[in-house]
Amino acid sequence: MAAIIECVPNFSEGRRKDVVDKIVHSIRSVPGTKVLDVESDADHNRSVITFVGNKESVHESAFRAARAAAELIDLTKHQGEHPRMGALDVLPFIPISGVTIDECVEVANRTAERIWKSLKVPCYMYEAAAKRPDRKNLENVRRGQFEGLREAVLTDDSRYPDYGSKGLHPTAGATAVGARMPLIAFNVNLDSTDVEVAKAIAKKIRASGGGMPHVKALGFTLKEKNMVQVSMNLTDYTVTPISKVFEAVNTEADALGVKVANGEIIGLIPLDSVCDLAARFLKLDAFTSRQVLERRIWT
Amino acid sequence: MAAIIECVPNFSEGRRKDVVDKIVHSIRSVPGTKVLDVESDADHNRSVITFVGNKESVHESAFRAARAAAELIDLTKHQGEHPRMGALDVLPFIPISGVTIDECVEVANRTAERIWKSLKVPCYMYEAAAKRPDRKNLENVRRGQFEGLREAVLTDDSRYPDYGSKGLHPTAGATAVGARMPLIAFNVNLDSTDVEVAKAIAKKIRASGGGMPHVKALGFTLKEKNMVQVSMNLTDYTVTPISKVFEAVNTEADALGVKVANGEIIGLIPLDSVCDLAARFLKLDAFTSRQVLERRIWT
Repeated sequence: MAAIIECVPNFSEGRRKDVVDKIVHSIRSVPGTKVLDVESDADHNRSVITFVGNKESVHESAFRAARAAAELIDLTKHQGEHPRMGALDVLPFIPISGVTIDECVEVANRTAERIWKSLKVPCYMYEAAAKRPDRKNLENVRRGQFEGLREAVLTDDSRYPDYGSKGLHPTAGATAVGARMPLIAFNVNLDSTDVEVAKAIAKKIRASGGGMPHVKALGFTLKEKNMVQVSMNLTDYTVTPISKVFEAVNTEADALGVKVANGEIIGLIPLDSVCDLAARFLKLDAFTSRQVLERRIWT
Repeated sequence: MAAIIECVPNFSEGRRKDVVDKIVHSIRSVPGTKVLDVESDADHNRSVITFVGNKESVHESAFRAARAAAELIDLTKHQGEHPRMGALDVLPFIPISGVTIDECVEVANRTAERIWKSLKVPCYMYEAAAKRPDRKNLENVRRGQFEGLREAVLTDDSRYPDYGSKGLHPTAGATAVGARMPLIAFNVNLDSTDVEVAKAIAKKIRASGGGMPHVKALGFTLKEKNMVQVSMNLTDYTVTPISKVFEAVNTEADALGVKVANGEIIGLIPLDSVCDLAARFLKLDAFTSRQVLERRIWT
């Protein structure tokens, strides 16, 4: 199967439909790119476009989107609730199938370099594409937003862009370009009304508490269900698969004398992770998504 | 998602590559049809072509393939190991996604009627498309093969075709047209060297022994692995899902004091069945293949 990379750029425009349409059109104009979703928020004055393609087509679409945004959006006139520093504000590349996170980092760098050279919009690399540890976190990169960064970059060497020079683009600002794994939102509901149980399990299993890597977890009460929930974000299912997380929650719940009621997958998950779960259930030693009939049909 | 029907016609020609190529070309000539696989066997003098499409495109491709086979294959000159009664010998339609077995029965009937009316090749309906219980089984339909059926149909009313008249096509014979669910080949290996254990479990769970419907099962010795195996064919995973079969084998193995070593999926399985397994593992109440990221991308 050809490589599939997902790209989810965020643009600082959520009110003028014609501008968003032109950006979407610039993305769609590349053969091999497929736009999956467009969401605009008027309060945030921000749009999120989800598209997929191979290494070449996502690169080309991302660049054309950056060019359209720089031409059509003037940050000096932009107001909205959401923090932002660029017309094209963030540009993450996400490996879906037949491609590694390292290859997405390469695409991110190639795109950032071209955005800087062709459009004179400086770029900051974040998450897996970060060139400095303090830029892994997007919030650090975007601190001060457009207005603050525009000043800071002139005097503070620590804010110097990864691709660019001492100064932002006057109207398009700067863009954060990154690479990350697909996010899986996974919840486990417990037959208990004691939120402390859910909180204790969440604390035990999450990465920040010394648990499993790439697991974020919180405990909540579900009032209408009369249950409590361990709510999780899995930020790299190839390192910590869902099956392992579910087993860990079961083990911790057992230790606290509480039963697991059911699990919930929120939104979309990659085929490989579904296949991993099926393989675990049936104790399959050798099973891959290549054995899924529809994959043969679709690709 | 659009309906996906798989069609796996078998042709009585496995030696003349130009003939097989022409048949494949006739299938491919329909927009919306995708050929997944072509396998020719010279000993059997038979080719199996696997293609997919929607209701309209599989019907049209199947008809064009029947026409090409009737024009290019002369059964009076055909010799091969495999039983056969027609130039296009069998034509099964299989529901993969977004379509029911009943809709495949409709497509099968529409195709059979057109093959008879346009090509004067009589058709016998089998498996889920059978119009008489004794024709569910393909072997009953094909009994006597081309040479035997050609005579029998003239005198034996029980061999009268479902679409056709008293007599076969002089060179293209007759075609068995059917509908069936995708077949899943699933094995479970046991930590035991006692083949009687595997045979006992197989007997207990298979449909013919009063076990689960649509389960065929046999017990074997795996000499090189020093294990025994329950080897199964699941002929309707929507009635008896893999998860239920696996749990039944586990229960029976437990009762006999034997441990399950691992499972094996041979070949391809439908996405829906993989999603069912994932849902069982995580105790998901509401999970469907619509939540698989790649499905959004591919369809």
